[in-house]
Amino acid sequence: MIKVAVMGFGTIGSGVVEVLSINRESIAKRVGDTIDVKYVLDLRDFEGHPIQKKIVHDYRTIVEDKEVSIVVETMGGVEPAYTFVKAMLEAGKHVTTSNKALVAEKGAELLEIAKAHQVNFQFEASVGGGIPIIRPLKNCLTADVIEEITGIINGTTNYMLTEMSEKGVDFDDVLKDAQAKGYAEKDPTADVEGYDAGRKIAILTSLVAGQQVDFEDIHTEGISHITSTDIKYAKSMGRAIKLLATSKHVGDGYAAMVAPFLLNPEHPLFSVNGVFNAIFVKGNVLGDAMFYGSGAGKLPTASAVVADIVEMAKHMDKHIPIEWRREKLELIDYKDFDNRFFVRVNESEETVKAVFGEVEFVKAEGVTGEVGFVTAVMPESEFETRTAKLAVIQKIRVK
Amino acid sequence: MIKVAVMGFGTIGSGVVEVLSINRESIAKRVGDTIDVKYVLDLRDFEGHPIQKKIVHDYRTIVEDKEVSIVVETMGGVEPAYTFVKAMLEAGKHVTTSNKALVAEKGAELLEIAKAHQVNFQFEASVGGGIPIIRPLKNCLTADVIEEITGIINGTTNYMLTEMSEKGVDFDDVLKDAQAKGYAEKDPTADVEGYDAGRKIAILTSLVAGQQVDFEDIHTEGISHITSTDIKYAKSMGRAIKLLATSKHVGDGYAAMVAPFLLNPEHPLFSVNGVFNAIFVKGNVLGDAMFYGSGAGKLPTASAVVADIVEMAKHMDKHIPIEWRREKLELIDYKDFDNRFFVRVNESEETVKAVFGEVEFVKAEGVTGEVGFVTAVMPESEFETRTAKLAVIQKIRVK
Repeated sequence: MIKVAVMGFGTIGSGVVEVLSINRESIAKRVGDTIDVKYVLDLRDFEGHPIQKKIVHDYRTIVEDKEVSIVVETMGGVEPAYTFVKAMLEAGKHVTTSNKALVAEKGAELLEIAKAHQVNFQFEASVGGGIPIIRPLKNCLTADVIEEITGIINGTTNYMLTEMSEKGVDFDDVLKDAQAKGYAEKDPTADVEGYDAGRKIAILTSLVAGQQVDFEDIHTEGISHITSTDIKYAKSMGRAIKLLATSKHVGDGYAAMVAPFLLNPEHPLFSVNGVFNAIFVKGNVLGDAMFYGSGAGKLPTASAVVADIVEMAKHMDKHIPIEWRREKLELIDYKDFDNRFFVRVNESEETVKAVFGEVEFVKAEGVTGEVGFVTAVMPESEFETRTAKLAVIQKIRVK
Repeated sequence: MIKVAVMGFGTIGSGVVEVLSINRESIAKRVGDTIDVKYVLDLRDFEGHPIQKKIVHDYRTIVEDKEVSIVVETMGGVEPAYTFVKAMLEAGKHVTTSNKALVAEKGAELLEIAKAHQVNFQFEASVGGGIPIIRPLKNCLTADVIEEITGIINGTTNYMLTEMSEKGVDFDDVLKDAQAKGYAEKDPTADVEGYDAGRKIAILTSLVAGQQVDFEDIHTEGISHITSTDIKYAKSMGRAIKLLATSKHVGDGYAAMVAPFLLNPEHPLFSVNGVFNAIFVKGNVLGDAMFYGSGAGKLPTASAVVADIVEMAKHMDKHIPIEWRREKLELIDYKDFDNRFFVRVNESEETVKAVFGEVEFVKAEGVTGEVGFVTAVMPESEFETRTAKLAVIQKIRVK
């Protein structure tokens, strides 16, 4: 019998306990042994709840119990998760986490500690919720040089953009609705400003590059400036606005960015709607692939955590190497990226032509008193220089 | 240095040699050793071709060379592939194959032989070309009970249906075009009648059930009876016709089928067009997931074969168990399936109502002299009994 401890009995942590119970038999069959939850670490007592008898308040109880071989961290945030996880690994316990903040900031270091103690540190659930993406990247797409990863990896903003598009409503109204439905937090900043997606693409880029990418270095734009007028333009172009987190292998370097993009209907990510997530991967021999599923939610995310438990339970005495060195990778400056832009300006078409030459002008139903156009592909820096002369209302990149 | 032999220097086999060359460095880094092709088995001599010096004509040359530890089988067909692969496994060599006919028929037996000799037999490329699906099923979705797998897993028919839908042309014209482009074979039966998809869903169902599913037992309908009139009806319903291979876990059993289905735009498979493939998987805790990519083609398929090589090269002394017992699984009779049907009949609406009660009638632009309707959900057997009384022009299942 394999004894597990769960740190944090919130949505994901309780989901993990539930999945281990629901699929107890099929999991035992795959592992060749039963998996039992021995402790749940939480500040609360859960008086009267069936979990109450397993609750402990001090993480050292788990550290010191040699019977516990696998620990699940679903507390969120860097501290105290980091201190607890580090202690578990140093005590020779395998750890899986769903905590993107922890992985983005301390992933490389925790992998190093895991290696030193010949245990495993896994984090499938930290990106894309239930969607298998980290294991496929490390174990399936191994014949390829990964040239691009572009994902819709924040369910909150994707739900909001889908609603804005389907109902023609504005950002503020959709945000209230998303908060009411529990899809957005009371302070929605991390989601709507793109920081959550930034942490996730930092993790994926670190795994592809094999070394540390700091999410603070990734140029990040959110969706709070997107309006129903932008959606009207998108529709008239037959495109959809999606918040993309994207990372490209360019020459010897990597370029990464989080920003809203206008996607055409041929792009595999175009029809990823609502709270669903999807991650598009381009390999140099595989070509285009995409992984789609529930990017959040209790049971889907817990499914990914439990898949890590199964993997670790099958490799109790084996360290599975994951290359992610602590040495920091300097990203290519986003101003050197090439992009096309959709732009709305308070200028005449003549002024636009004088600045950008021949462009494709775009009209949207019921929108007057401004000019919309799509530029040619150009470096971001050049775009900035040119638009410095114009009264810009909005700019959205076009993929 | 790890020595590999490739059996069959056709499209996929030559692709494997190419991928091992293009990504030689990145693969060596992942494996921790270089991978070298020592032999290529083919009937032809390839006079003057760079591969000529590696060509051998007798598979026993490979069997007897102890230096060769991994063998790639890309010949296609059951024999002589089966004899060759068996001999390689018995000689203690790992084998990967892209050959769905071989895997569907002999997979369980070859896995048994591999186990007995503590080597590995892998076949990621046999389903979905470059799309990782077998490894994700076995190594990623391990927390779940898989309730459904539904795939667009034949690129030829998906290309044809996409063309029929976009250009309004009929089956015969699209077939000629697909043959001219090399997407369809001279004898297209295996693709257009659904047998290729049937073999692939048999493999996936065997892996999910852990025991042998014979593709001959799977009820299979192709697309050769689909007309441009059907496409018109599909469009008026806002739906798309896709050839689906589907397998469901029902109670204690499994139900499988290959047939054209009318999909609504909300289904993740709706927007999978052209030669692309995608496999939708439903887990009891994960919910809906989908894997999308190039289902065929030289380099994408070779990418999946080489990913198997990498996996086996990293586990040279370890047998990785894959559960697929030889004991045959009896599938649930497809007549017990519940389905909805779109039906076209040479009858009056009154006759239809007399047989099916209240149904949803459907009209298509420019189609007269017949009646189209969608039934309620009912067992296939009940549908057959009811329609026995009607002059049916067409029936297509609705998902």
